[in-house]
Amino acid sequence: MNYKWSGLEQRMKDVGIHTLLITDPKHVYYLTGFLSNPHERFLGAVLQLGREPFLIVPALDEEAARSTSDIQDIITHQDTDNPYLILNNHLDGTLGTVGLEKEHVSIARYEELKATLSFDSYLVDIGPWLRELRVVKSPEEVSKIRYAVQIIEQVLQEALLKVKEGITENELVAEVEYQIRKLGADGPSFDSMVLSGEKTALPHGVPGTRQISRGDLLMFDIGVYASGYASDITRTFAVGELSEEKKHIYETVLAANQAAISAIKPGVTFGSIDKAARDVIDAAGYGEYFIHRLGHGLGIDVHEFPSIHGNNEILLTEGNVFTVEPGIYVPGVGGVRIEDDVLVTPEGVEVLTSFPKMLTYL
Amino acid sequence: MNYKWSGLEQRMKDVGIHTLLITDPKHVYYLTGFLSNPHERFLGAVLQLGREPFLIVPALDEEAARSTSDIQDIITHQDTDNPYLILNNHLDGTLGTVGLEKEHVSIARYEELKATLSFDSYLVDIGPWLRELRVVKSPEEVSKIRYAVQIIEQVLQEALLKVKEGITENELVAEVEYQIRKLGADGPSFDSMVLSGEKTALPHGVPGTRQISRGDLLMFDIGVYASGYASDITRTFAVGELSEEKKHIYETVLAANQAAISAIKPGVTFGSIDKAARDVIDAAGYGEYFIHRLGHGLGIDVHEFPSIHGNNEILLTEGNVFTVEPGIYVPGVGGVRIEDDVLVTPEGVEVLTSFPKMLTYL
Repeated sequence: MNYKWSGLEQRMKDVGIHTLLITDPKHVYYLTGFLSNPHERFLGAVLQLGREPFLIVPALDEEAARSTSDIQDIITHQDTDNPYLILNNHLDGTLGTVGLEKEHVSIARYEELKATLSFDSYLVDIGPWLRELRVVKSPEEVSKIRYAVQIIEQVLQEALLKVKEGITENELVAEVEYQIRKLGADGPSFDSMVLSGEKTALPHGVPGTRQISRGDLLMFDIGVYASGYASDITRTFAVGELSEEKKHIYETVLAANQAAISAIKPGVTFGSIDKAARDVIDAAGYGEYFIHRLGHGLGIDVHEFPSIHGNNEILLTEGNVFTVEPGIYVPGVGGVRIEDDVLVTPEGVEVLTSFPKMLTYL
Repeated sequence: MNYKWSGLEQRMKDVGIHTLLITDPKHVYYLTGFLSNPHERFLGAVLQLGREPFLIVPALDEEAARSTSDIQDIITHQDTDNPYLILNNHLDGTLGTVGLEKEHVSIARYEELKATLSFDSYLVDIGPWLRELRVVKSPEEVSKIRYAVQIIEQVLQEALLKVKEGITENELVAEVEYQIRKLGADGPSFDSMVLSGEKTALPHGVPGTRQISRGDLLMFDIGVYASGYASDITRTFAVGELSEEKKHIYETVLAANQAAISAIKPGVTFGSIDKAARDVIDAAGYGEYFIHRLGHGLGIDVHEFPSIHGNNEILLTEGNVFTVEPGIYVPGVGGVRIEDDVLVTPEGVEVLTSFPKMLTYL
């Protein structure tokens, strides 16, 4: 039983519950190494005190589960089976209170489980347990994130070669996604974003048919999933010469990015990292244009716990991986965001993204 | 109030409930024209008897909701608000029994709703109501599906130009997804699949680094979302000459595809369409190698109600849109699948996909 399961087992003893039922495919991957999208089919990883964990998977996923997970005890169900009955037959004794992920289990599934398994109507939400485990990455997880970062930086490098006057945002998105596939990632970790000109001032802008022209800011916010882990990077470039105002915005965002990174070390609050960046932007007079949080956790999900905003009093720990992405968005002028992925180390911080951040003229 | 809302209102009266809360973004799109991915934020479309429907959306989606939906009454919530409180203030009277989508609402959300709104613990599942509405497509919906089909057929045409000995499955997937973007679709409607050689015998195969070579079967199973609607097509090609066995498999699948399509008309069962294809494959001696259902409904979701298998006793109706995708998969030899998207018309059927189905040698 790996350290993740042992951590869950300790919590089960602490709160006095006998059975955990884990059905979020990302949690199943985290705990067992088996990554799948079961769609509407039933997938579960189960831990009962005093037993080894077991997996219940759709029959067509059995081979994949056996070859990728470290679980020995794997049971399967066909599309014509009632998977809850098969699960029930494999469980020990009466269940009492059950721990499950309340944010993942639908009312419909809960009712089906209740109809087949005998457990108390009182449930313990184990979503927070998994969140707290996942927030500290193991060296193996970090190396998967490094790999996802390496791919997206190559993608960005390739995509930049295609930038020329007249090419559209959509064409650059197509190039990004072509390279993501070609370089062997599982796929983009979110909708690839390429924005240009005044559209860079829209933090939720959607790429379109706007053509790149001289004097534009050009922003790439892109990432991939590879080996089940995500990367997420933003870089903003100059197409030809920029106005003094745009240059000033760029330098301010870069200083904010660097101030936040310099503030990272175990034991300080996430809120203080957000503040380090915000102070720089406030001092430059752009405070009202930094309209979002500093960043978010990064791992199996591209956006995961914790949310890095000014009120977050949680303390940084060695092994946290998250994004640092300050931005300034001036309507009618343009926007700049510079986003890195960082790892908290015993000494402070390691920046996992290595793509140059000096203002680059394309 | 459009015919979709009126249909729901009639059902509310029939079962005696006063309030519907619809939170699945696909259902919200279907009913209002507003398509979004709210992620963890709260999105709802609400109907109470005697009132016009209203929308509750995250503040940052307000402009999009106003410009794309036909709903006048739109309320918003900020990330710092409790959205359930804002919803509660906009509702009339006590709620009594509430109708919601049990497959979409998580236990966590249900508990939050219960803590804020006063409604009976008894809920009516309205998932089936929406499923039954959505299974009959309006002319406007059909034209969106036609558009998604048109794009994917252009994508396939472009991708075929890249086929040559030595190119890998992954490179062809990259080309498919590049064209999907370039032609302006919202994105693939599922993981684009290009399989070659013996791998075509795996109905759930994953594209990889296998190089295309002479004598291969080459299968594309691809689709797009465009204007919120999906297309889904499979074609299988010959690279150079094929063995007699592979040719025979191809012709059998094509005959099965055509037999199923010929059987389509209002009033027959979905099961009978599956049987029409299966009979052809059984007669050719390949029955054990047709290991999946004939097809699935197609619309806002690429896989939607109904599931088209031999036991489906539901009757076809004008306006149904679904896939017809028989296949034969012989381990160690290869597989062929030919998939069309079809519309049930008053006279019988219209095949929406027009890509040639005769065995084509690349």
